[in-house]
Amino acid sequence: KQDKRSRIPAKDQKPVRIYYLGGLNEIGKNMTLFECGDDMFIVDCGLAFPDDDMLGVDLVIPDFTFVERNKDKIRGVVLTHGHEDHIGSLPYLLKQINVPVYGTRLTLGLVEGKLREHGILNKAKLNVIHPGDVVQMGCMSVEAIHVNHSIPDAVAFAIRTPSGTIVMTGDFKIDCTPIQGEMIDLARFAELGKEGVLALMADSTNAERPGYTKSERSVGESFDALFKKAEHRRIIIATFASNVHRVQQIIDAAVHYGRKVAVSGRSMVNVVNIGMELGYLSVPDGVLVDIDVLNRYPKDQVVIITTGSQGEPMSALTRMAMSDHRKVVVGPDDYIIISANPIPGNEKTVGHVVNELMKHGCEVVYEKMYEVHVSGHACQEELKIMLGIVKPKFFIPVHGEQKHLHKHMVLAKGMGIPADHILISEIGKVVELTPNSMKVVGTVPAGRVLVDGLGVGDVGSIVLRDRKHLAEDGLIVVVASIDAESGFVVSGPDIVSRGFVYVRESEMLMDDAKRLVRRVLEDCADKNVREWGTIKNRVREDLSRLLYERTKRSPMILPIIMEV
Amino acid sequence: KQDKRSRIPAKDQKPVRIYYLGGLNEIGKNMTLFECGDDMFIVDCGLAFPDDDMLGVDLVIPDFTFVERNKDKIRGVVLTHGHEDHIGSLPYLLKQINVPVYGTRLTLGLVEGKLREHGILNKAKLNVIHPGDVVQMGCMSVEAIHVNHSIPDAVAFAIRTPSGTIVMTGDFKIDCTPIQGEMIDLARFAELGKEGVLALMADSTNAERPGYTKSERSVGESFDALFKKAEHRRIIIATFASNVHRVQQIIDAAVHYGRKVAVSGRSMVNVVNIGMELGYLSVPDGVLVDIDVLNRYPKDQVVIITTGSQGEPMSALTRMAMSDHRKVVVGPDDYIIISANPIPGNEKTVGHVVNELMKHGCEVVYEKMYEVHVSGHACQEELKIMLGIVKPKFFIPVHGEQKHLHKHMVLAKGMGIPADHILISEIGKVVELTPNSMKVVGTVPAGRVLVDGLGVGDVGSIVLRDRKHLAEDGLIVVVASIDAESGFVVSGPDIVSRGFVYVRESEMLMDDAKRLVRRVLEDCADKNVREWGTIKNRVREDLSRLLYERTKRSPMILPIIMEV
Ligand SMILES: [Zn+2]
Ligand SMILES: [Zn+2]
Ligand SMILES: [Zn+2]
Ligand SMILES: [Zn+2]
Repeated sequence: KQDKRSRIPAKDQKPVRIYYLGGLNEIGKNMTLFECGDDMFIVDCGLAFPDDDMLGVDLVIPDFTFVERNKDKIRGVVLTHGHEDHIGSLPYLLKQINVPVYGTRLTLGLVEGKLREHGILNKAKLNVIHPGDVVQMGCMSVEAIHVNHSIPDAVAFAIRTPSGTIVMTGDFKIDCTPIQGEMIDLARFAELGKEGVLALMADSTNAERPGYTKSERSVGESFDALFKKAEHRRIIIATFASNVHRVQQIIDAAVHYGRKVAVSGRSMVNVVNIGMELGYLSVPDGVLVDIDVLNRYPKDQVVIITTGSQGEPMSALTRMAMSDHRKVVVGPDDYIIISANPIPGNEKTVGHVVNELMKHGCEVVYEKMYEVHVSGHACQEELKIMLGIVKPKFFIPVHGEQKHLHKHMVLAKGMGIPADHILISEIGKVVELTPNSMKVVGTVPAGRVLVDGLGVGDVGSIVLRDRKHLAEDGLIVVVASIDAESGFVVSGPDIVSRGFVYVRESEMLMDDAKRLVRRVLEDCADKNVREWGTIKNRVREDLSRLLYERTKRSPMILPIIMEV
Repeated sequence: KQDKRSRIPAKDQKPVRIYYLGGLNEIGKNMTLFECGDDMFIVDCGLAFPDDDMLGVDLVIPDFTFVERNKDKIRGVVLTHGHEDHIGSLPYLLKQINVPVYGTRLTLGLVEGKLREHGILNKAKLNVIHPGDVVQMGCMSVEAIHVNHSIPDAVAFAIRTPSGTIVMTGDFKIDCTPIQGEMIDLARFAELGKEGVLALMADSTNAERPGYTKSERSVGESFDALFKKAEHRRIIIATFASNVHRVQQIIDAAVHYGRKVAVSGRSMVNVVNIGMELGYLSVPDGVLVDIDVLNRYPKDQVVIITTGSQGEPMSALTRMAMSDHRKVVVGPDDYIIISANPIPGNEKTVGHVVNELMKHGCEVVYEKMYEVHVSGHACQEELKIMLGIVKPKFFIPVHGEQKHLHKHMVLAKGMGIPADHILISEIGKVVELTPNSMKVVGTVPAGRVLVDGLGVGDVGSIVLRDRKHLAEDGLIVVVASIDAESGFVVSGPDIVSRGFVYVRESEMLMDDAKRLVRRVLEDCADKNVREWGTIKNRVREDLSRLLYERTKRSPMILPIIMEV
């Protein structure tokens, strides 16, 4: 503490603590909490989409237990950009703690839509920030720095703390020829690096990929070539709704080739409206037409921009492929471009949509060879540039699964950062930084909270386990009434099955099952076994054994026995 | 019929018909039936793995309706090779029609194991064939031709019919430096081409991929480099069990570096045993050790060959990753190579296994950059060579989804085959070939039959629909007894739920639900509604509305009302 070289007065050297509430060992639900003394603030509040084993779950949000416990300390939430994995859980958070929210214009534009849907927009305290702005968060402050990404208006943060400066890149890439706005503000990152950066937390999404991510502009060149190839056909392009620059390039190509543009899919319509309203999309008058009147124009004079680039079952493109879209019927006169790569896990659904479109006779462009998509995240060479100019003392890779974080660590080691100055953290871990040290000092509650319909957190592991059981082997309900006095069967046993077998084709099995249950119940009555739990367990066990022997399946068995 | 140029006597010009019972618009359950006059035979009888929406289903086999209808005409089954998508349904077929089976030695070796499991090996009529052998099938004959693939002993077929020769490539690639045996017999294909080939049916799996598939030998070179890098660590390699040549190369590398080899995973043990028995795998004495005694050797002297390259939940590698393997505990001393690419749909599970292994501190090699895997299927340049030397009059791309078949068609057009001489067929379609024509002449029953446990075909669309409903929203059982005379409630209503919400945390909702049901039942009694269906429907509708309003979920509702 009495170190003379230190220029920070000892009393201000409160350590800073970083709480990871999401975004590590996953790509999704990013949420990080910073603490210094009595002050806290949150960076991002995203959601994740459910895994295959979370049957029936709509979305996944972070566990807010730790936030609620500390609600009085929290000075606000700052947002890096408007992707769902960074803003999607904000409505759920603000319902718990209504703190000020800071974000760039487009980010807050997208947030507003969400808060309106949740009926809490009028209460929210939204504050627009611009790159260069500094937001004070008690004894810490947050400066926004312009970065490139697959959505406009994305920012990184330089977080000033008594222990030193922490740089958080947010999601970023280096695009030297962006569609709109400036190239990432590398100069600012470099300045910070020269001043001295205590720690860097950087986007690991593409840490497995060598080289550079191509400029968004290269996609425009592909569009130009493909619009030519489309000739007399209608063009349908599916992409991510939030990729406003991609949409701009489609519109530019349409204008260039004299085509009208119609928009399909709820989220695409929403983003195009917000983008135009806020000036992020420039569309000449008369270019946009309603999808209802599209058929008035010849095929070679229209482009449809649509959702569904991931083969999502309810999306516009999937509906077109399944002949289930109310406005658009596809056929050999359609030239379809899927301007996106499948997110891992979606390869099969995307492939399915491509197959179905081809069966209608459409030509479908979906391969990498045409470069109809570029990533929004930095590849290895860009990550090395970031590490090289920020020159952090400590490094924490974030925004990735273990394999991404691990590769990012290997890159950082290659750049000369000592292994013990790099930390792969985990959700729930608390990392403490002082001017000279980085260490894990504890854990706090963190994890995933499942949202199903209106229910937040009411679907847990038991409910999911039951759903899985029902999904795999179905259900047998055994019903019987027994006499309250004697315990003998008065009516039934009847058997109702769902998701097990076709009952009509399994009458013999069902008859045997009924006989078995009757025997069990009579045996219990004879032996004067009157304990409900015992009787039900015996029915369940004996019936389960019979069904497994005969079918090698283990349906859920619900014995319902009524006393009359 | 009187065409003088024809050298085939008119009376023999019976058309040949091809019935596609599987393998089109899918990669899986390949099965093709040839008919000429009163003779029929089948090529391959494979299975498919269930899609995500086939909840609880174990595997999918072709619909044998058409085969059973024609059982007296069927002269036999010929098999191209021993992959599951070509032999997996054979036991189910032979249980219906016990016809002779023809296949190469390894193929039949694998078939024997399956038939033994199904208890029908002693009855089966298995006949070993070698490349060059001709099997007579009534008025048709089948000649086997050696090809390269990711399993040894794969063959193509030249099918002689009165209408002309049909070449079926089976699964193939062109490997000029195979690990064992010869390069694909291109000379024989070329001879047939010179004689004149009526139609070609060729493997479309890799029709989307430009260039050539690399030789299996290139993987060996990667292994050599990686074994060096592994240094003092234990090496664990996951690959497809059936890829005997891959296993051979691992063993060769192990011998070279003085390591013992242990085998983990049921199917891997099975294939290694069959491979050694039949002479497809050569393992020097003392190299193989039992996995139980592996810990007696230092880490740098062992290699484990394991299943699980697709992240299959129950596989050996996944168990190692989840700390659930009884014999192998992984950690920082393990160097793990996943020698396979994820099959579309498996990217996420493979990624998950990689992440978990890395959390244990293992180094995991899984990227394409190391070339630890090559495909077993021909890429575009190889497909063009096959088309170019066989020079078929008609072309039918097979073994692929629509997008693969379509690309293969585009390649064939580029080679000069007229569009009307190319047919993308479908399961159930009947294609008729005469010396001068190819056309679709009808359809027959075809599709997928689901196998769940011992049940073959007893899980259909209704059962699956119920499983999906149960999986997504769970179940509510409503139980009540009503008086047989008056219709009034005697006991209940009670509510049992599974997979819906935690009942303990939703007591108010459950109480409201019970009140609602009681009201509905009393109302029915008052109005003298005594029809069971009507009463149950009212309970279902009213309760469903309440639950949806309160939770935005729609569980399956089973009203069980007993009269006493
Ligand atoms: Zn993002
Ligand atoms: Zn993100
Ligand atoms: Zn194969
Ligand atoms: Zn195959």
